[in-house]
Amino acid sequence: MSKAQSVLAHWHSHRDVLAPLVASVPEDKLDFKPWDGAMSFRDLVWHILAVSATFAAAAKAGRLTERPEQPDLSTKQALLDAISTFTEKTHADIASISDEQFESIVETKAVFGADLPAKALLASLIDHEIHHKGQLFVYARLMGAETLPFFIHR
Amino acid sequence: MSKAQSVLAHWHSHRDVLAPLVASVPEDKLDFKPWDGAMSFRDLVWHILAVSATFAAAAKAGRLTERPEQPDLSTKQALLDAISTFTEKTHADIASISDEQFESIVETKAVFGADLPAKALLASLIDHEIHHKGQLFVYARLMGAETLPFFIHR
Repeated sequence: MSKAQSVLAHWHSHRDVLAPLVASVPEDKLDFKPWDGAMSFRDLVWHILAVSATFAAAAKAGRLTERPEQPDLSTKQALLDAISTFTEKTHADIASISDEQFESIVETKAVFGADLPAKALLASLIDHEIHHKGQLFVYARLMGAETLPFFIHR
Repeated sequence: MSKAQSVLAHWHSHRDVLAPLVASVPEDKLDFKPWDGAMSFRDLVWHILAVSATFAAAAKAGRLTERPEQPDLSTKQALLDAISTFTEKTHADIASISDEQFESIVETKAVFGADLPAKALLASLIDHEIHHKGQLFVYARLMGAETLPFFIHR
């Protein structure tokens, strides 16, 4: 198994929970935030998609590239469509990274204060996604969702 | 760097956030739960400590061993002491695992439905801890904490 395939298997075990999680919440509560300064449910889903897409694109390109433009997220279906589109894009970027490229340094100093090897950037992508997905589970309960997926997709 | 050292560095980047996170919340709200069926803040901290200790002990022993006994968790200081004790124990167990042992199969079928290689068990330990720590950040905000650590210890 290539390093990219191994990262993809790990990443998908979390990413593939996002659509069922979004599907579980009431359509009229997508702007829910648990406390005043929080990101809303909708914004936190987008934050996960955008950051993971940005990290994967950077690991592929060897440098940070432009942040993706926010698509329509006005309805639950639009959120699910965005998950689908960005999952496909992020998957393709990770899949394109060769084993040698995993060790190469990515120019990330402007954002992270240090240049990181591609493998560290991809590990951070997954950690960041698990962290915020965990938060979305609490959001979903507070929004009234009763049946939630397991936190890892099997 | 041995495989154990690499896992320890990754694990500590999350575990070492737990004490400052607990320190940030009000002493009189440790029983806070965001929704009726939720684990309380106190219980969720213990859940992280207990599961990580159990997974690390199993990876070391090659089989599931007894769950650790719950220590005093009645005050914030008791919680901080438990974090310290269990972090030391879990660290020692992971540190003792040789590179060869990472590939060996652990008898986990009774709990997971399948026997898992030690390396997969340790990866799950970290994922599980990040997931619930993310939830504790939402709890802490809802409990009135204003200054929180970053989600990764640097």
